[in-house]
Amino acid sequence: MKIKYISPITDEDFEKKSIAEAQGFASSKVQIDVERVPYGTESIECSFDEALAAPGIIKVGLDAAKQGYDGIFVSCMGDPGLDALRELVDIPVVGPCRTSMLCAADLSTRFSVITVTDGVVPIIERIAYDAGVAAKLASVKAVNIPVLELGEKDRLIQSLFKLAIEAIEKYNAQLLILGCTGMIGVSEKLMGLLHDKRYDVPVIYPVSVSVRYLESLVLLGLSHSRMSYPRSPKKSRSIWNILNK
Amino acid sequence: MKIKYISPITDEDFEKKSIAEAQGFASSKVQIDVERVPYGTESIECSFDEALAAPGIIKVGLDAAKQGYDGIFVSCMGDPGLDALRELVDIPVVGPCRTSMLCAADLSTRFSVITVTDGVVPIIERIAYDAGVAAKLASVKAVNIPVLELGEKDRLIQSLFKLAIEAIEKYNAQLLILGCTGMIGVSEKLMGLLHDKRYDVPVIYPVSVSVRYLESLVLLGLSHSRMSYPRSPKKSRSIWNILNK
Amino acid sequence: MKIKYISPITDEDFEKKSIAEAQGFASSKVQIDVERVPYGTESIECSFDEALAAPGIIKVGLDAAKQGYDGIFVSCMGDPGLDALRELVDIPVVGPCRTSMLCAADLSTRFSVITVTDGVVPIIERIAYDAGVAAKLASVKAVNIPVLELGEKDRLIQSLFKLAIEAIEKYNAQLLILGCTGMIGVSEKLMGLLHDKRYDVPVIYPVSVSVRYLESLVLLGLSHSRMSYPRSPKKSRSIWNILNK
Amino acid sequence: MKIKYISPITDEDFEKKSIAEAQGFASSKVQIDVERVPYGTESIECSFDEALAAPGIIKVGLDAAKQGYDGIFVSCMGDPGLDALRELVDIPVVGPCRTSMLCAADLSTRFSVITVTDGVVPIIERIAYDAGVAAKLASVKAVNIPVLELGEKDRLIQSLFKLAIEAIEKYNAQLLILGCTGMIGVSEKLMGLLHDKRYDVPVIYPVSVSVRYLESLVLLGLSHSRMSYPRSPKKSRSIWNILNK
Amino acid sequence: MKIKYISPITDEDFEKKSIAEAQGFASSKVQIDVERVPYGTESIECSFDEALAAPGIIKVGLDAAKQGYDGIFVSCMGDPGLDALRELVDIPVVGPCRTSMLCAADLSTRFSVITVTDGVVPIIERIAYDAGVAAKLASVKAVNIPVLELGEKDRLIQSLFKLAIEAIEKYNAQLLILGCTGMIGVSEKLMGLLHDKRYDVPVIYPVSVSVRYLESLVLLGLSHSRMSYPRSPKKSRSIWNILNK
Amino acid sequence: MKIKYISPITDEDFEKKSIAEAQGFASSKVQIDVERVPYGTESIECSFDEALAAPGIIKVGLDAAKQGYDGIFVSCMGDPGLDALRELVDIPVVGPCRTSMLCAADLSTRFSVITVTDGVVPIIERIAYDAGVAAKLASVKAVNIPVLELGEKDRLIQSLFKLAIEAIEKYNAQLLILGCTGMIGVSEKLMGLLHDKRYDVPVIYPVSVSVRYLESLVLLGLSHSRMSYPRSPKKSRSIWNILNK
Repeated sequence: MKIKYISPITDEDFEKKSIAEAQGFASSKVQIDVERVPYGTESIECSFDEALAAPGIIKVGLDAAKQGYDGIFVSCMGDPGLDALRELVDIPVVGPCRTSMLCAADLSTRFSVITVTDGVVPIIERIAYDAGVAAKLASVKAVNIPVLELGEKDRLIQSLFKLAIEAIEKYNAQLLILGCTGMIGVSEKLMGLLHDKRYDVPVIYPVSVSVRYLESLVLLGLSHSRMSYPRSPKKSRSIWNILNK
Repeated sequence: MKIKYISPITDEDFEKKSIAEAQGFASSKVQIDVERVPYGTESIECSFDEALAAPGIIKVGLDAAKQGYDGIFVSCMGDPGLDALRELVDIPVVGPCRTSMLCAADLSTRFSVITVTDGVVPIIERIAYDAGVAAKLASVKAVNIPVLELGEKDRLIQSLFKLAIEAIEKYNAQLLILGCTGMIGVSEKLMGLLHDKRYDVPVIYPVSVSVRYLESLVLLGLSHSRMSYPRSPKKSRSIWNILNK
Repeated sequence: MKIKYISPITDEDFEKKSIAEAQGFASSKVQIDVERVPYGTESIECSFDEALAAPGIIKVGLDAAKQGYDGIFVSCMGDPGLDALRELVDIPVVGPCRTSMLCAADLSTRFSVITVTDGVVPIIERIAYDAGVAAKLASVKAVNIPVLELGEKDRLIQSLFKLAIEAIEKYNAQLLILGCTGMIGVSEKLMGLLHDKRYDVPVIYPVSVSVRYLESLVLLGLSHSRMSYPRSPKKSRSIWNILNK
Repeated sequence: MKIKYISPITDEDFEKKSIAEAQGFASSKVQIDVERVPYGTESIECSFDEALAAPGIIKVGLDAAKQGYDGIFVSCMGDPGLDALRELVDIPVVGPCRTSMLCAADLSTRFSVITVTDGVVPIIERIAYDAGVAAKLASVKAVNIPVLELGEKDRLIQSLFKLAIEAIEKYNAQLLILGCTGMIGVSEKLMGLLHDKRYDVPVIYPVSVSVRYLESLVLLGLSHSRMSYPRSPKKSRSIWNILNK
Repeated sequence: MKIKYISPITDEDFEKKSIAEAQGFASSKVQIDVERVPYGTESIECSFDEALAAPGIIKVGLDAAKQGYDGIFVSCMGDPGLDALRELVDIPVVGPCRTSMLCAADLSTRFSVITVTDGVVPIIERIAYDAGVAAKLASVKAVNIPVLELGEKDRLIQSLFKLAIEAIEKYNAQLLILGCTGMIGVSEKLMGLLHDKRYDVPVIYPVSVSVRYLESLVLLGLSHSRMSYPRSPKKSRSIWNILNK
Repeated sequence: MKIKYISPITDEDFEKKSIAEAQGFASSKVQIDVERVPYGTESIECSFDEALAAPGIIKVGLDAAKQGYDGIFVSCMGDPGLDALRELVDIPVVGPCRTSMLCAADLSTRFSVITVTDGVVPIIERIAYDAGVAAKLASVKAVNIPVLELGEKDRLIQSLFKLAIEAIEKYNAQLLILGCTGMIGVSEKLMGLLHDKRYDVPVIYPVSVSVRYLESLVLLGLSHSRMSYPRSPKKSRSIWNILNK
């Protein structure tokens, strides 16, 4: 099984980190190829970035389907290009926001998402609705640390911890989702800090859950409903020519 | 007052028709300048088209704000680029789907949208949620006539009429919205046909309602909440350079 | 175009203030005639007042339709008599609560209303449901200043400011609606105070938005759905004779 | 225990029928006094009628509280004046629409209401929301027989039966509520007809359930929350003087 | 009329207390027979206890129906066995959680439940949904006092009072329900304490409301919908033989 | 990794079929041990059966946790005992109804469940709420074939096909879930029949999806939130002694 893991931003460092950890998220029999978008933005922190990220993600995804990949993972919590890709290809296309929310809906009564910037908050709220689990979403709040500074782990963890406490005490959250695929390697530390405060709540890092889920879909031969994602008609699309000449 | 009316597709004919009717939708003191996107798709009929339309719409909108326009109208029922533009500019940005649904929510207990293609249905359902009126949306169905064939008025009206009857009788709709800005000049005919069937329901053509609403916002000095649409941060966006060099 | 602006209480001072500001809310070509109810209550602060206000509002509205007015505005946040008038007349009838909430739903993700008295709170919550936007209503709270004391601007603004902060910080509101048509001339001051606290949120004064909206409906030839507001049957109504002999 | 049963219309015949059946709805120790409104409309079939019925109902209710009654029953499915009366008196005030819907919510998964006229449909839908059980309301439909012709039992039962079948088969209703207090003495017949069609569904006649419920509230010393129905302030109410001089 | 009042736990003391107060909840003409489960748990404080309580409750209820009882009351806020019993018998089966929530939905805009332990919280939230009134449920919180220690009245009242204040001030509750049938004889004291804090809110003790309601159902000849609770098919059920040999 | 697969009924044939197919649902490295309940019912078709199945399922699950299993799968669409088991053990406990609905929520806009008997319908509707995806559930209908007759494949497929068409055409379902774990080996046939009718919809057989999901949870070290499923307190539980002596 071959999975295409799309790194949605043009930052090379992010692609490298993704490559480093990607294989760890799947079975040994699964080959995961990370590829970053050929054009886009250096990070995704608002709807403007989402809009500019989508064409590159669609391009990589379309090529992957043609190259015989079995599944596509779009590594961005805003799920940019996901709906479009599902229209265009038959193989399963998975996004971390939908997947982690659905997992959270199973494992808890109410969950919160802690994301990077205020600009991403409404995007995640909308995906909760699209995924159908808005009724279980307690809150979405942002640490307001730029994506490219998420590598400062101590600062990140302190901010996450503060908002986690707020999510639990003010919004009655009983499970937390890290709301950015760039929040790598902090979920266990955060669970530990919460555990010390006697809050025994799971913290989901969305990428790992999603890649496993995608692997399952491929194995089960399941994909999105064509009635929900009707096939896209052929037509002249000038922007596509500009971008991909 | 100067309003920028963005024609969201690259089709020249659509731009011409829009120019022909645009001024009729606003007061005589309002200047409406129609401008079509510099790149995009020839029509918008699915999420893939939405994703490819957004960059061009954002480009035209951004330029309009710099040129001193007082308001922006994005003439597409999928509201592509609307969220991004609201992040980027301070002047009001209005979309026909949100606006017509909110008007329908005032004038009726339950309303339906009849749009062009199945690929647009989930997009409109999502906007109903974003606009906050999902509870009043009875149904969204598609005539499945391509956008560029909407000029065949008789065929369009017959299809609209059939789906209007279904919306009323099966889904209890009490008001109808034409779900494509390209469905020009058919609302009165449709109301007449329904009236003959003793169904006394308003039919909203979204462009006219939206342009009037945008004019009101400008006059009242009202615009979107900056808390709901936080300002977009500065960063490297390579795709922007490719498209706009 | 001639619009009837119904002052819903018997207080003469309120009618005078309404006359003073009414024309400013519409285009120069629109004639706005303010008329106060012939009988009712001196202010509207609870469901009992709503019930007693309705007959007088219906009377003025019915007469306006007979006299050839093009639209009716009921200047009360509880929308008393609005449903009845829509059954009785064909011209559009607009209420400030529905209209401002629908506008707020477009411009923000979540909004709050700050009204006069606790007795009005459940009334406004119910209208949010009727208008279909209950999902976006963050909170409704009251300054608990009697309507006839709203002229004390400093006291009013201080109370509004305190509740605005609560709406934003406790209920995540991102836009505010002044919940009484008697809260005249304070929205800009309130926005300024919030801006100083770095809360960049629009504050809607419902009358101005509603009158503009009514004007648009008239120009567009749009009115309420007859299916949602079926025509009222003829019958003996003794109370009508007592009140209007 | 003494209960005031308010006949909400001016029709004498309706009052007589109510007197005839009222006592049968309560325990032998409970005294039920039927009183019709001193002014109002001859029947209630739309929002206009609701608005004109309220003042008379409030008048009778207020007097009843002063005269030492222990509870008030407003015999109209639109619950006119109910909110106002709850503000004005401390004794429990009960309406048949809320009560029967809450009972239906206990006894079934989903229920429908079959009422008199289309004009009452939105009123009942709104009460479902007010009562908090909108999620269980399958449909509200009208036989469109005028209230004063409900005495034609055969015609009524045939119409109810037809709509009952529709409610069950099209809207998945599993319990039915008769949506007018004037639909006297037909619930058992209707249940029988449905039973013959192998639909084993309860049919609730709202008056009987409501009077029993009111009796229970009085015995338990329970009444409405003063926080939900804040006490109405004193003020000048000119319409009250006109009506009650 | 004979009603079977099922004491859902094996604790004899609880049965005795129930016998002492049971008759006080119904009319003098109603005979209430308390019977505790023949097997189960000594208290009900989590889903595990609910699961183990159900078989004994069903056994007592089934026997009651065979013995000619007219109605069954299951005295547990988790309504264990209620759905099963409704499938098995034709007489009305009433649970205190559903009933008190529906009464609360009538008497207030929003209500909270204060229960015994955190393990019961999700159970009560689920019943709010089943009963159809989830939209009005402000919060469910637990005093975290074991059921068998509820006899310590002072400790109980202090804990209830603290959570009542939180329900009102943080969650906007306007009516409170005691969330355990073992919270006997404290509702009036709690109302008094809240009254002293100027919070005029009803406090419902669910048993009394429910027994009265059950009595009304029997008198009115009403019971659950057979469509919502289809009759259980005959089959081999080995666990039944083990338990009831 | 060792997974305990609980066969929830006492029927030996069902256990054998489960053993035959179980290993096929997981990776080769995962050991799946099927075990049927020691006491219960011969099939699960209503709430009575659910109530009687739970103790046996809890017993097997508890023992599995003590024996060092890594995860528990409860093979019943009513998820009996699932909440209780999550309180009692730390390893993940997965049910097919929740899991397949969450997967369906990802892959489609709206889905329907086709189950065995009418008695299971309300149970599945309740789980949709518990799982948080009620908003996407289009309908739940039953073939009304007893569980022990599901082996008659032709009869089953014809019934499923008929209800699948109804789900799509009447309820707008865009994905289908087989609503009984006993509907083995029919999903592909059903998809083929629908495909021939030009309905391109996925059909989920819940067991395979759920076992894969459970495997992922174990690998990721994820389990249910202890705040949502608080640990069950120790106490006397007489029924447990009777059943497990």
